[in-house]
Amino acid sequence: MGVTVRTEFRVEWGDCSPSGAVFYPNYFRWFDKSVWDLFEKAGHPIVEMERRYGTVGIPIVDMQVSFQRPCRLQNDVVLETRATEWQTKRFKIHHEVSRAGETLVTCVETRFWGVRHPEHPERLTSAEIPAEVIAAFEGKGG
Amino acid sequence: MGVTVRTEFRVEWGDCSPSGAVFYPNYFRWFDKSVWDLFEKAGHPIVEMERRYGTVGIPIVDMQVSFQRPCRLQNDVVLETRATEWQTKRFKIHHEVSRAGETLVTCVETRFWGVRHPEHPERLTSAEIPAEVIAAFEGKGG
Amino acid sequence: MGVTVRTEFRVEWGDCSPSGAVFYPNYFRWFDKSVWDLFEKAGHPIVEMERRYGTVGIPIVDMQVSFQRPCRLQNDVVLETRATEWQTKRFKIHHEVSRAGETLVTCVETRFWGVRHPEHPERLTSAEIPAEVIAAFEGKGG
Amino acid sequence: MGVTVRTEFRVEWGDCSPSGAVFYPNYFRWFDKSVWDLFEKAGHPIVEMERRYGTVGIPIVDMQVSFQRPCRLQNDVVLETRATEWQTKRFKIHHEVSRAGETLVTCVETRFWGVRHPEHPERLTSAEIPAEVIAAFEGKGG
Repeated sequence: MGVTVRTEFRVEWGDCSPSGAVFYPNYFRWFDKSVWDLFEKAGHPIVEMERRYGTVGIPIVDMQVSFQRPCRLQNDVVLETRATEWQTKRFKIHHEVSRAGETLVTCVETRFWGVRHPEHPERLTSAEIPAEVIAAFEGKGG
Repeated sequence: MGVTVRTEFRVEWGDCSPSGAVFYPNYFRWFDKSVWDLFEKAGHPIVEMERRYGTVGIPIVDMQVSFQRPCRLQNDVVLETRATEWQTKRFKIHHEVSRAGETLVTCVETRFWGVRHPEHPERLTSAEIPAEVIAAFEGKGG
Repeated sequence: MGVTVRTEFRVEWGDCSPSGAVFYPNYFRWFDKSVWDLFEKAGHPIVEMERRYGTVGIPIVDMQVSFQRPCRLQNDVVLETRATEWQTKRFKIHHEVSRAGETLVTCVETRFWGVRHPEHPERLTSAEIPAEVIAAFEGKGG
Repeated sequence: MGVTVRTEFRVEWGDCSPSGAVFYPNYFRWFDKSVWDLFEKAGHPIVEMERRYGTVGIPIVDMQVSFQRPCRLQNDVVLETRATEWQTKRFKIHHEVSRAGETLVTCVETRFWGVRHPEHPERLTSAEIPAEVIAAFEGKGG
């Protein structure tokens, strides 16, 4: 089922709002870090992809997030992230935050392979994802 | 069309990643502030609702986000936020970030009227939204 | 007494920790924005200085912060920022957060005029601050 | 020399500004987490201290920070944190961020033992630090 990154951590003071639960923008800091870890685990660290393929990050097109249970200060949580549905220029990333086996939050992101426009380097354009990158994600076990 | 909050601001250094565009968790900090401003404009500041109705924030159930164009350092942007689709216990919040009339990012959140569980005050439960709150949002012009 | 920036704002939900007071890293987000506003007000927006003088931000060397009173959710506060003690390559920035005339937090930063090293562009080196920049700060009233 | 917490981590995309170096408020998120880890390692997790002693966080009085070298995206860094100079109601926390043995940033915080005021529970007041807490920090090896 492809490369998966699994991170265990404790919800910190600075992650939480006055309610004592996670201030929701912080989930996305966690998710972004997990995407970097995922690409590194697949053998394609994002900074190297920038050098090798001219990508500029891996921009998000859209995102669906489902907040199922609150996630609180000092909770011990697990974040699992994997890539799915590789298309010519796009793919999806799935994130799941759980606590003791119960799902708290899920997020599905669609991202595209973004490179600098050849004539307007200050702009992004989408490009075909190299076959070796897709293979690296699909071939490896978690 | 109900209460609308419109905020003009400049994208700051601290909002942006090394790409020079907004680090996407920061959009949600902007959106959260805009929801507070929206409730205040409707005459129901969130802190007063907590005292008056026993709400605990206004938790998000799910969220769809569409990133249509990059938003960059020092861009002058407009964020517009409004509430729609008031149901018994839920409603939606729409956010739109635009620059010079072009939509950059949209977000639709479903939120619920969350109160402390009467027997388990450490837990949240959903409750009916007071009619006067819905009226305050639907009755006023932007 | 030179250029001063004064910003009035309300402490937001997302600025605060579970204690209901500001999570202290957020003060520095406010301060950083205020430095940008200060340079813009003095007629030297930081992005233009980068083009004109080759500066790379205005890096901080050291910082003293004094937390005198807690700053809480929904407090209406004033942040005042000014530059002082212009030296050949360094200057100081003073920040003060107050509420109803009472000082809550003060911060003094020493910053240097940082430019790309001519032979090693990935490194920073300090350089003399252009006289016109110093004049712009010292000549104008707040 | 007392309890020390040492954390190795990689500087993330979301930690950095458009300069490619750490956006400085993020250092303080790291430092705050490290203080929680330090108290936990000393056998006094902060949340338990709140129950046991009535503390409300461990508020910072003042802070000196020295930024000696830039800390960049994807740098592998070490953060070391320890408590020193235990007084009746105050103590100091030292943080040091280093990369390959070179110091990048140091921070010294003075914190006080803050408890709810007995008559005005919405206010903080300082109190004597329990001897067992000081002993726990001074007695243990790193």
